[in-house]
Amino acid sequence: MPPGAAPALDVVAVGHAIVDVLAPAEDALLERLGLVKGTMALVGDGEAAAIYRAMGPGTEVSGGSAANTAVGVAALGGAAAFIGKVRDDQLGEVFAHDIRAAGVRFDTPPATAGPGTGRCLIPVTADAERTMVTCLGAAAGLSAGDVDAGLVAAAAVTYLEGYMWDPPGGIAALRAAMAAARAAGRAVALSLSDPFCVERHRAEFVELVDGGQVDLLFANEAEVVGLLEAASFDAAVAGVARLPVLAALTRGEAGSVVVRGGEVVAVPAEPVAEVVDTTGAGDLYAAGFLFGFARGREPAACARLGGAAAAEVVTHLGARPQRPLRTA
Amino acid sequence: MPPGAAPALDVVAVGHAIVDVLAPAEDALLERLGLVKGTMALVGDGEAAAIYRAMGPGTEVSGGSAANTAVGVAALGGAAAFIGKVRDDQLGEVFAHDIRAAGVRFDTPPATAGPGTGRCLIPVTADAERTMVTCLGAAAGLSAGDVDAGLVAAAAVTYLEGYMWDPPGGIAALRAAMAAARAAGRAVALSLSDPFCVERHRAEFVELVDGGQVDLLFANEAEVVGLLEAASFDAAVAGVARLPVLAALTRGEAGSVVVRGGEVVAVPAEPVAEVVDTTGAGDLYAAGFLFGFARGREPAACARLGGAAAAEVVTHLGARPQRPLRTA
Repeated sequence: MPPGAAPALDVVAVGHAIVDVLAPAEDALLERLGLVKGTMALVGDGEAAAIYRAMGPGTEVSGGSAANTAVGVAALGGAAAFIGKVRDDQLGEVFAHDIRAAGVRFDTPPATAGPGTGRCLIPVTADAERTMVTCLGAAAGLSAGDVDAGLVAAAAVTYLEGYMWDPPGGIAALRAAMAAARAAGRAVALSLSDPFCVERHRAEFVELVDGGQVDLLFANEAEVVGLLEAASFDAAVAGVARLPVLAALTRGEAGSVVVRGGEVVAVPAEPVAEVVDTTGAGDLYAAGFLFGFARGREPAACARLGGAAAAEVVTHLGARPQRPLRTA
Repeated sequence: MPPGAAPALDVVAVGHAIVDVLAPAEDALLERLGLVKGTMALVGDGEAAAIYRAMGPGTEVSGGSAANTAVGVAALGGAAAFIGKVRDDQLGEVFAHDIRAAGVRFDTPPATAGPGTGRCLIPVTADAERTMVTCLGAAAGLSAGDVDAGLVAAAAVTYLEGYMWDPPGGIAALRAAMAAARAAGRAVALSLSDPFCVERHRAEFVELVDGGQVDLLFANEAEVVGLLEAASFDAAVAGVARLPVLAALTRGEAGSVVVRGGEVVAVPAEPVAEVVDTTGAGDLYAAGFLFGFARGREPAACARLGGAAAAEVVTHLGARPQRPLRTA
């Protein structure tokens, strides 16, 4: 596709292909397992098995941060694709079925050897907070060769989850995706994913944003404060204002703040009757924002779409919308 | 254990070890796939794959009719065990984790070769009805050698799901379980499972009940009418009254009818604010009834416990209780 042609897709998302295992849990379980509520921890097979044994009966649903965002874009009526790696096993079949059934294009070939499809164990506490324990498995094996440059060129925005910087092999895939987007004159969006993820990859993330390689930045309070090593959210906003990026900063029930240069717009959250499970709130905020952005809406309108999408996903267990999302 | 010793377990359930795949569906999908709403159809791998492709994004939860009943007994505070076959694959791991995490003893060794862990595809329509498409996989491989006679002897009741008569190999396992229960002086319970299942195995079921090999019989209206080839539910009740069995006949929101000889007691259903998914209603009715029976309660009290357990499980998606069940 020549640079500048009208995009056939709204969003192509690049991320870890993961099946979530959700189970109600007591706060005491998190303490006993040494987990920090609301964050994501990476573990190996052995530790995952031990934590799984300590958890109650679960519900399996397809997840993955960027994959959830792609599904959200589709639920808004947008055209979305996902690039990520599963293994040719039962959970890989579940992941592929679910994302395609949600209307997202997913063509990345599954691995035929190596670790199984990635899983994320998610104890959900009574306060609706989710704590994630991820065993990446096959998801860590995404390679540059898996990135379909034509697909990336066809999308208005290429969206990368920060978690993808975790496995050493993933970075080549991200570079390939960013290069393909740039070559086609498309936008690149980055989600910082998690405060510990920012801690692990702060230098790379700063370089990407400082260097103008990212057009759109998604972060929550803890993540943006960590990225800029700021003393407060306000200080972080001031810091972001000096960066060459459009930033959408989420603050949970306090809504979001959109920052572009000196322009700072606060957008309130949608009221929610009962928050059941916050899993996917950030992913769906990104979906709404990206859909608006791809369709040429103003940043504040994009933030409102993000807030509305997030408000739907927190009303039920699981990180993907259960009904079509409204676009106005 | 010598006959007559106090049972260490309330219930040991023998059935298919199955992982359910639930997805919201339109009535039109059932028609297109030729499925009869509210019933269970057995399919092979190829047909299951085609139906799965036609279904929307799913939620995986452990299921299996008798396994759900065992979990229900545990949720009532009873001591329960399950005998059934999974494969040593990802869904088998999910099944084993979930039933153990629910407090049910599950020691049947997984198959190390052959078909994968059984799955049941369940389109759930807007009227909360579930339609089941089962691919038995490894569950069909339960053998007499898998039946731990000591475990059966330790349980007040051995509960058999009618579905177990479907795979030809399963009958030897059932005979072994019934023989072990009888030898220990324990009760045997049979669920007729599904009207089509009754159609397939009517002669065997009649022989079991007529011959006094079953102490407790669970059936819904269509199943008991089918078993007795009766013209109406009332005619079926009259027929059951002549059989040497205590029968608990469920009628959905009309409650249940307990029949023992000439004694017929109708017990109303528990009121439910919103029925979300009827999956598991019959399984949980059996759980409540069996728990009461194992603890020496009167049949009408058993039926009330069954109704209360069923009322909980229809308020959410999935066939297993999401909270401890009340026992009075």
